[in-house]
Amino acid sequence: MSRRKTRIVYCGKVKIGGNAPISIQSMTKTDTRDAAATISQIKEIEKAGCDIIRVAVPDEIAAKAIVKIKKGIKIPLVADIHFNYKLALLAIDAGADKIRINPGNIGEEWKVKEILSAAKSAKIPIRIGLNAGSIEKYAGKKRHETAPVIAAKLVAKAAEYVRFFEKNNFYQTVISLKASDTMTTVEAYRKMAKLCDYPFHLGVTEAGTAITGTVKSSVGLGIMLNEGLGDTLRVSLAAEPTEEVKVGREILKALGLRKNESDLVVCPTCGRCEVDIFGMAKKVEDEMLKLKKPLKIAVMGCVVNGPGEAAEADLGLAGGKKAGLIFKNGKIIKKVPEKHLLREFIKELKKTGQVKNV
Amino acid sequence: MSRRKTRIVYCGKVKIGGNAPISIQSMTKTDTRDAAATISQIKEIEKAGCDIIRVAVPDEIAAKAIVKIKKGIKIPLVADIHFNYKLALLAIDAGADKIRINPGNIGEEWKVKEILSAAKSAKIPIRIGLNAGSIEKYAGKKRHETAPVIAAKLVAKAAEYVRFFEKNNFYQTVISLKASDTMTTVEAYRKMAKLCDYPFHLGVTEAGTAITGTVKSSVGLGIMLNEGLGDTLRVSLAAEPTEEVKVGREILKALGLRKNESDLVVCPTCGRCEVDIFGMAKKVEDEMLKLKKPLKIAVMGCVVNGPGEAAEADLGLAGGKKAGLIFKNGKIIKKVPEKHLLREFIKELKKTGQVKNV
Repeated sequence: MSRRKTRIVYCGKVKIGGNAPISIQSMTKTDTRDAAATISQIKEIEKAGCDIIRVAVPDEIAAKAIVKIKKGIKIPLVADIHFNYKLALLAIDAGADKIRINPGNIGEEWKVKEILSAAKSAKIPIRIGLNAGSIEKYAGKKRHETAPVIAAKLVAKAAEYVRFFEKNNFYQTVISLKASDTMTTVEAYRKMAKLCDYPFHLGVTEAGTAITGTVKSSVGLGIMLNEGLGDTLRVSLAAEPTEEVKVGREILKALGLRKNESDLVVCPTCGRCEVDIFGMAKKVEDEMLKLKKPLKIAVMGCVVNGPGEAAEADLGLAGGKKAGLIFKNGKIIKKVPEKHLLREFIKELKKTGQVKNV
Repeated sequence: MSRRKTRIVYCGKVKIGGNAPISIQSMTKTDTRDAAATISQIKEIEKAGCDIIRVAVPDEIAAKAIVKIKKGIKIPLVADIHFNYKLALLAIDAGADKIRINPGNIGEEWKVKEILSAAKSAKIPIRIGLNAGSIEKYAGKKRHETAPVIAAKLVAKAAEYVRFFEKNNFYQTVISLKASDTMTTVEAYRKMAKLCDYPFHLGVTEAGTAITGTVKSSVGLGIMLNEGLGDTLRVSLAAEPTEEVKVGREILKALGLRKNESDLVVCPTCGRCEVDIFGMAKKVEDEMLKLKKPLKIAVMGCVVNGPGEAAEADLGLAGGKKAGLIFKNGKIIKKVPEKHLLREFIKELKKTGQVKNV
């Protein structure tokens, strides 16, 4: 399916919308007022492959800390603002590359106008970040409404804010419409797609613990991205931000939207399996992070599936009773005693993947 | 989107196809020849909510063990057969509720006919289980073909087998077309859907380590189920079968295809969060398994999101500096010192969820 045509906005050097690659975002879990801790967490998140980072700005000290944080990081920073328009102005002043607000909780229109005007001067975009939970307060949502009703209310609110932004000549807008229910979220973005060409920030909010959240985000974002919706995304997990980034990357990879990344295929094992596939796969996955050249790797459990199914991989191993096999480009290159299989495979992996210290 | 119209087959007492709920499958990782170990694992898998279990049948001893295994379990059993048609006959004889074969690796046509005839006498269905890896061997797949080409080959092969089954008056067929590449899998099922009305067993094969596999399966199965494709599913993970079942359930829940299940929403936390949300969420999740009555639960990190966003939940907690809040049906029912918050919440959870030993 073709991608929805969206206008382009810039968050620092990262392009959002148009034909730009879909960027991955995450949010720090540190106290933003503690610049050192926040910088250190962002560095970890950068390493995991994050494109844009968001920080909470609960008070003036946090807003001012952005100056220092920006100096210590490479990726653009989004300031997350609630309630107080002054915090948005301070964050913009401190060098935030983008602001995220829910105009509904900022208060009077003149306050939102102040933010628009400051963002315009600073040439930074604003994300209108709505979620199903907050429209309860600000748009008269009632409990236990159905997905289409909640989605329609989210969209109506977003459309109202978009019009207000446009009336004030602000067009550097990104939109998010998150609900904790996956299909409500999907429904809302689908509806909104028909109303404007602003880029979408995709996400399912408060998505649950690590596995549940991963499933909800993968299902929801998977469906939308497959329909061509979405220009940037955040996976919300009750887990470390680096995990959010990892899941985001895996979602894009599964959809074929991230090229040139390594890929690991692991046999789920069955009664035929006679070696510790999960243990080996974990270790191979760790080693793959070091690869200079992206590779398709297969870790297979037995001779039934191994030789045939691992053939697609650039490099693969298949475990066997006492000896395992190593494949390259569909051809067996080595037969190795089981106890040396992993060691020999990793040696081959480093060579093929152009890791320097082999 | 409406569900694809499929004919109904029965795997034991479990209906597959038509309007039947989408059933969840998993596969044992024990040695099938060890009936006691296999029964014990299946009991765990049953408890996790699995509807149908598959076991590998690598030899005659394994096939015969099915008699004993069937006596110790409640859910229907599928025998997974490779290469040797005699193992299929033995498994059917031993009481398997369904057989899974790739006709391409069984050999001569008369051998497949023997299986069809035995399955027909026993009134059990057969899954034609193809995967992209195996067609390399059996259908001339070449390395590095594109997704549409591989998908087309899978579908052509499946259609050929279906015709052969029909020519031999066998119609109790289920079809799976798995690839380790998510979008190849989706493409194959979409194509096949246009050619027949046999129910689909969905899956992405060798899907990777726990998180990667969860993402691939959630994206692929999410897209297909959302398009109305799929009657039964297996999530393949390099992890315990109970994890496969859990992910399968979460996928169906995310799509709104499993009603009457409890749901946990967890705030992903941010710089505003001052309590251990992940720790609390894990404990709450464990307690939720005991609920008699399904509940929508929210575990929120702060006053900004807590009161508004947890309102949709039947029961929720919001952490705060020194005191937390407990919500019920959108109303605050208790303010509790932080150190007692979890204890008090679980007490309320058990009461509301009708757990007996409160």
